[in-house]
Amino acid sequence: MKLKELAEQLGLSQTTVSRALNGYPEVNEATRERVNKAALKFGYSANANARRLAMGRVGAIGIVVPIHSSERFGPHTSEFLSGLAERLSRDEIDFLITPLINNDEISAYRRLISSKRVDAMIVSHPSLVDERVAVLTEAQFPFVLHGRTNIDAPHAWLDIDNKGAFYQATSHLLDLGHKHIAMIDGLKGFTFSEHREEGYRDALTERGISIDPHFIVHDCFSDEIGFRETQRFLSLQPHPTAILAGSMMTALGVSRAIRAKGYQLGKEVSIIAHDDVFPYLNASNMVPAMTTTRSSIRAAGTRIAEMLVRLLDGEPPETIHEVWPVELILRQSSGPPVIPAK
Amino acid sequence: MKLKELAEQLGLSQTTVSRALNGYPEVNEATRERVNKAALKFGYSANANARRLAMGRVGAIGIVVPIHSSERFGPHTSEFLSGLAERLSRDEIDFLITPLINNDEISAYRRLISSKRVDAMIVSHPSLVDERVAVLTEAQFPFVLHGRTNIDAPHAWLDIDNKGAFYQATSHLLDLGHKHIAMIDGLKGFTFSEHREEGYRDALTERGISIDPHFIVHDCFSDEIGFRETQRFLSLQPHPTAILAGSMMTALGVSRAIRAKGYQLGKEVSIIAHDDVFPYLNASNMVPAMTTTRSSIRAAGTRIAEMLVRLLDGEPPETIHEVWPVELILRQSSGPPVIPAK
Repeated sequence: MKLKELAEQLGLSQTTVSRALNGYPEVNEATRERVNKAALKFGYSANANARRLAMGRVGAIGIVVPIHSSERFGPHTSEFLSGLAERLSRDEIDFLITPLINNDEISAYRRLISSKRVDAMIVSHPSLVDERVAVLTEAQFPFVLHGRTNIDAPHAWLDIDNKGAFYQATSHLLDLGHKHIAMIDGLKGFTFSEHREEGYRDALTERGISIDPHFIVHDCFSDEIGFRETQRFLSLQPHPTAILAGSMMTALGVSRAIRAKGYQLGKEVSIIAHDDVFPYLNASNMVPAMTTTRSSIRAAGTRIAEMLVRLLDGEPPETIHEVWPVELILRQSSGPPVIPAK
Repeated sequence: MKLKELAEQLGLSQTTVSRALNGYPEVNEATRERVNKAALKFGYSANANARRLAMGRVGAIGIVVPIHSSERFGPHTSEFLSGLAERLSRDEIDFLITPLINNDEISAYRRLISSKRVDAMIVSHPSLVDERVAVLTEAQFPFVLHGRTNIDAPHAWLDIDNKGAFYQATSHLLDLGHKHIAMIDGLKGFTFSEHREEGYRDALTERGISIDPHFIVHDCFSDEIGFRETQRFLSLQPHPTAILAGSMMTALGVSRAIRAKGYQLGKEVSIIAHDDVFPYLNASNMVPAMTTTRSSIRAAGTRIAEMLVRLLDGEPPETIHEVWPVELILRQSSGPPVIPAK
């Protein structure tokens, strides 16, 4: 049975029937009950398309990806999209991805807002003062932010506790007896990078250890950067006996540079990596198994999709926000510092 | 100046002006010239949106991604999308990604074809007899296939020479003196996996070496599979002295299992990996540097986007197809077999 036929049976408009089935407040309780009973009786199940039309929606959410900006279309993005997809596919919601060759993101956001091609947007990789968030808030266009900003206007967001994660990892290394701890962080300006550095600095400062600027790197997450920067770290005097790696890709390069120097991971040099849980790269299967701060970016995607659905269902954005704690998982790549045998 | 104003100045319809500016054959040479001169005089430059409307296009291409099918939303996909984006962003063409929770791809294709939400589609991961290709061809809906099928109907496609790549890699290992060569290939059924296995089998058969079914694995491309299957290979009697890895992710796991056994890469056990050129995972920076069959999946994406634009511009699909040769790049992870010291 089609929506049209069900509406005819009931002597109601299709819009009213569809709204009743979806529990929208415009329809009074008695009508809702009558519609639901009839739907059950005639075996009608609303399809996503019909529901969408009734609600005046296009059934797509927008994501703008500046393709020449590092970090923005790599393994993190595909995992995050997989997580979004997991939830959005249930409601037959598509993604409209706008790739940007220039970095004029703001124009792209304005175009999408006025295009009526998407019902809402997802914004990733915020900086502390993020113009995109300001523009969307001003336009009162629904969006969920993956990450956080310092912007005060109400909006929906989900972030992980990056500061806590790196505070915890650094404190653990200090507990093990390390005094020289380096960090390969994400690019400057992004909130997550700034938060991670804060956590690292706070942990060192609390124990009265001064910050060595040579021990802090901000760059893309790649195997190559991990390798090159670790070679540089290990040429310093004194060199770090422990390294925090911002991603599993970075950690691969860090591990190789440690090994290439003839050191053992977890002995002469320890590593703790941040693990976004890529299904094709498993920390516990590494040799030695990798100590990580762990938070699934795919799970974050799924949750953000849920938040988006709540937002479209009328929940006010200021009630939708979450900070996820990050687990520190101890494995073999971290241990007490060992003086290298000469 | 807007398209509308330019059209008024010229006393022509907006559609005619737009088509003239884009060099479409419906507009005669004299009109085209007149329009171009006026555009120059009044400083009019067509924007992509106006061009699209005149051509009856929506400015988006569709991609269907079954999210529970392995291999379909991983690092290969994000690299491929980056390549597509590189070219499509120039024409302000977006992607509409339809994530599928069930595996009913055919219904999703039919929905997209009839939805008028996309101008064309891109189809990835074909099997030798691919129903999606059949459906799109029958509907005469524009698409470009990344890969190949055995379907005879004319359609546009780009593939790399997977068979040649694995034939070449296997032959090189045979030249070095290896007799026991294993292979971790992609999932059964995909054209690329079948072609790779053909190349491997042909090379062995030509030298009179019989195929050992224990030496062939079909699975997802992950570090974990590489590690686990290599442990199994190395427990066989005789064990392989060389392993072909279908991806760089697989190769990471293979390398670790070789090392965990106390063997050296390129000595007791050689590896040749297929490298899709992930920017965050560089074969020549590995220790030892990884011998690879190399073909950039990002470059393939960019080229496929170009093919799509040609297709939308009216070029017949049967003239649009390419097979890219794959380079074998010798580095330190492959060498003559060495008898393990006991």
